[in-house]
Amino acid sequence: MKVVIIGGGATGMGVASKIKRNNNNIEVTVIENGSYVSLGACGLPYYVGDEFKDSKKLFARSVEKFNESGIEIHLNSSIEKIDIKNKKLIVKNKEINFDKLVIATGAEAFIPSIKGLDTIDFYKLTKYEDGINLKAIVEKKEINNILIIGAGFIGMELAENLKNINKNVSIVELDSRIASKIYDEEVSDLIKNNLEQNQINLFLNNSVKEFIKKDNKIIAKLMDRDIKVDLVVVASGFRPNTRLFENTELKLSANNAIIVDDYGKTNIDYIYSGGDCCVIKNKITNNHCYSPLATVASKQAKVIANNISNINSKFYGSIQSSIIKLFDSGVARAGLTEKEAKDLNINIKTVFIKDKNHTHYLDGQSDIYLKLIKNVDTNELIGAQMYSNKNSILRFYSIATLIWNKTKLNEEIEQIDLPYSPPFSRTFDIIHIALSKIIS
Amino acid sequence: MKVVIIGGGATGMGVASKIKRNNNNIEVTVIENGSYVSLGACGLPYYVGDEFKDSKKLFARSVEKFNESGIEIHLNSSIEKIDIKNKKLIVKNKEINFDKLVIATGAEAFIPSIKGLDTIDFYKLTKYEDGINLKAIVEKKEINNILIIGAGFIGMELAENLKNINKNVSIVELDSRIASKIYDEEVSDLIKNNLEQNQINLFLNNSVKEFIKKDNKIIAKLMDRDIKVDLVVVASGFRPNTRLFENTELKLSANNAIIVDDYGKTNIDYIYSGGDCCVIKNKITNNHCYSPLATVASKQAKVIANNISNINSKFYGSIQSSIIKLFDSGVARAGLTEKEAKDLNINIKTVFIKDKNHTHYLDGQSDIYLKLIKNVDTNELIGAQMYSNKNSILRFYSIATLIWNKTKLNEEIEQIDLPYSPPFSRTFDIIHIALSKIIS
Repeated sequence: MKVVIIGGGATGMGVASKIKRNNNNIEVTVIENGSYVSLGACGLPYYVGDEFKDSKKLFARSVEKFNESGIEIHLNSSIEKIDIKNKKLIVKNKEINFDKLVIATGAEAFIPSIKGLDTIDFYKLTKYEDGINLKAIVEKKEINNILIIGAGFIGMELAENLKNINKNVSIVELDSRIASKIYDEEVSDLIKNNLEQNQINLFLNNSVKEFIKKDNKIIAKLMDRDIKVDLVVVASGFRPNTRLFENTELKLSANNAIIVDDYGKTNIDYIYSGGDCCVIKNKITNNHCYSPLATVASKQAKVIANNISNINSKFYGSIQSSIIKLFDSGVARAGLTEKEAKDLNINIKTVFIKDKNHTHYLDGQSDIYLKLIKNVDTNELIGAQMYSNKNSILRFYSIATLIWNKTKLNEEIEQIDLPYSPPFSRTFDIIHIALSKIIS
Repeated sequence: MKVVIIGGGATGMGVASKIKRNNNNIEVTVIENGSYVSLGACGLPYYVGDEFKDSKKLFARSVEKFNESGIEIHLNSSIEKIDIKNKKLIVKNKEINFDKLVIATGAEAFIPSIKGLDTIDFYKLTKYEDGINLKAIVEKKEINNILIIGAGFIGMELAENLKNINKNVSIVELDSRIASKIYDEEVSDLIKNNLEQNQINLFLNNSVKEFIKKDNKIIAKLMDRDIKVDLVVVASGFRPNTRLFENTELKLSANNAIIVDDYGKTNIDYIYSGGDCCVIKNKITNNHCYSPLATVASKQAKVIANNISNINSKFYGSIQSSIIKLFDSGVARAGLTEKEAKDLNINIKTVFIKDKNHTHYLDGQSDIYLKLIKNVDTNELIGAQMYSNKNSILRFYSIATLIWNKTKLNEEIEQIDLPYSPPFSRTFDIIHIALSKIIS
């Protein structure tokens, strides 16, 4: 059997490696239009922030290592044509046949249409070259004032990293609050305070109407003021990289993401897809959602590889768990936000509480905030968000576990035996207190 | 209704406060033989280690505050006689009647019988005065070499705290490994390495045959050598403080702990007991076990108070979750050890793996060790132990949650959507890897 994988990102290389581990006799070819494979793109903001020097560390594994395990990789190779019916691709004028095809083309940065944006050298941060280019320019002393467009994960992480190398960082965000699709208002507000306390200039409920190049500076004309910056980074989200499939038999969703089933299979029997180019199942609603996260990609990759290798395997969906470090704090979330739940007409109860990370007598006691969202009809926890200092946030793993397992909220779960000792927790953890309140 | 509570520790005061919050009309009297109530005893090692100066911080709440909420407290009051049948106690020659009695007498330090121990001024660490006395003496410059008897939680925490104030600390432990009832060999060994790397002198598989006082020093005659120390601390575990009830109608277990049911009730209808003086139900085996932990006490207190206040409430048991900080590391555990499971003839599968806390490109990447124990017949996780750096250990909350919920081990749980970002984790967390291995 010959498997061709389009895209050498985390998903594509994950599928390739796992197929080879399952059955070394399966031929695996990866076609990648870039000059590298297996980029750990999540590390890009930290590379720009000089947390490490060697950009090669961004790659999970080298092309040579993949080749050694029998994976054929074509770099710098764009698909010129795809012939789904006859199971073949045209790459560099050459025909490549496949028995099974895996589409793992990922996502590309969404570039908003802003007047004058094409006249300035703006930056983005999804590819390896983006990281190299952005780091090279921010290392210049004359680059001091940096404007980031978009307050999502990349925007926030990049803001912190640029601040850490002493840049003056501004974020402009169309929405009235930070990451409003990811967090509810309480947590967006905590993040806003955090960023402001760390001297990130926030322009919420705002947007750039026009960029004007003036001498060596860029003038960003916001809705209410002009700001003069040295550099602009666009971090306005992603969109699935699926242009190649737009007029094919392949079923796409409204946002052009590839639709796959629980087995990673598209509407065409011998074509699979995973990662940032496709929609996934939300485990809570069973609806499709677009959630380009590395955690999802890695799990889908395993499922796809298993099914191709005749090992029955199912992808159980995502609760869109995420965690982010923002200076000394951590923010975690999973499941639905209150807003999402309301939009779906789910009968909910919510609690939002503030407590402490550990005992009062030890140094470093600090605030934790926890929001829980319960589906009153099913009596299940369907969403949660936590904000705390960065060393306390991993307790959220417990909450993600409760949501994942659709645990019923009752006295038994309120008594969950979480480990306690003075440097880590209190006898009643904030999780106990919040569960107690949402149950009653 | 009049409720009398014997013992003003965490359990007793927890019951008292919760009853008053439930129903202010219930009369609540606490009889405490010491001079204080609501000691947070878990803080004692940290007080001795000078992590904080004000010993009053060890008390959760003052006597006055409890009085304000309508709780009557008799300090320095020993029970001279108990007349269970007629529902009365004799305290300081006065009769006190009750409708319901709550026994929360806690535990006392177990003092091993060692020749010469009575001739030296040895210390222990369970009461407030113990902490005051021990801190006063270790603050003396001439007190440098300290021997701790017992490598349990208190012994280990105290060793770290004494090391932090520059003492030369030795631990002698009868067992061949650290805390063998709490951890399996792999984790005991990791702790042993940790303590040794932090210059704690360990004498395992050893014991003191005799103490001899010589000038201002104490000679501890171990099985294989003599060591000269300035101070001895006994941390050989606890035993339930139940002497008062030894020859009464109250049912006690083999180790003299009070036997209670799921509602905190003893064999006598109007007498309840909770905390370190009683046995609890192990949630995995359903057997009674003696597990004096603050987490258990606080949950039992709530259950007892609710049942006394006519709010139906059940204690669901313990999985003996614990966590401990040891210098820069953390150790957590829950459920059964491999040894316990084998002794119970449970058909088990175990995995023990080593992985990393977070991405390799960020500073601070370090090892995590995780052991999982599965009941093969029920396909449930019944035990786990984790060792990592202290800022990574809280991910164990997820494992405790899986054990608590008796989650079935299958592909769905292997895909648990735990949050990821580079400073906290990897796309496949050690939890995913371990689950994957124990499932297959």
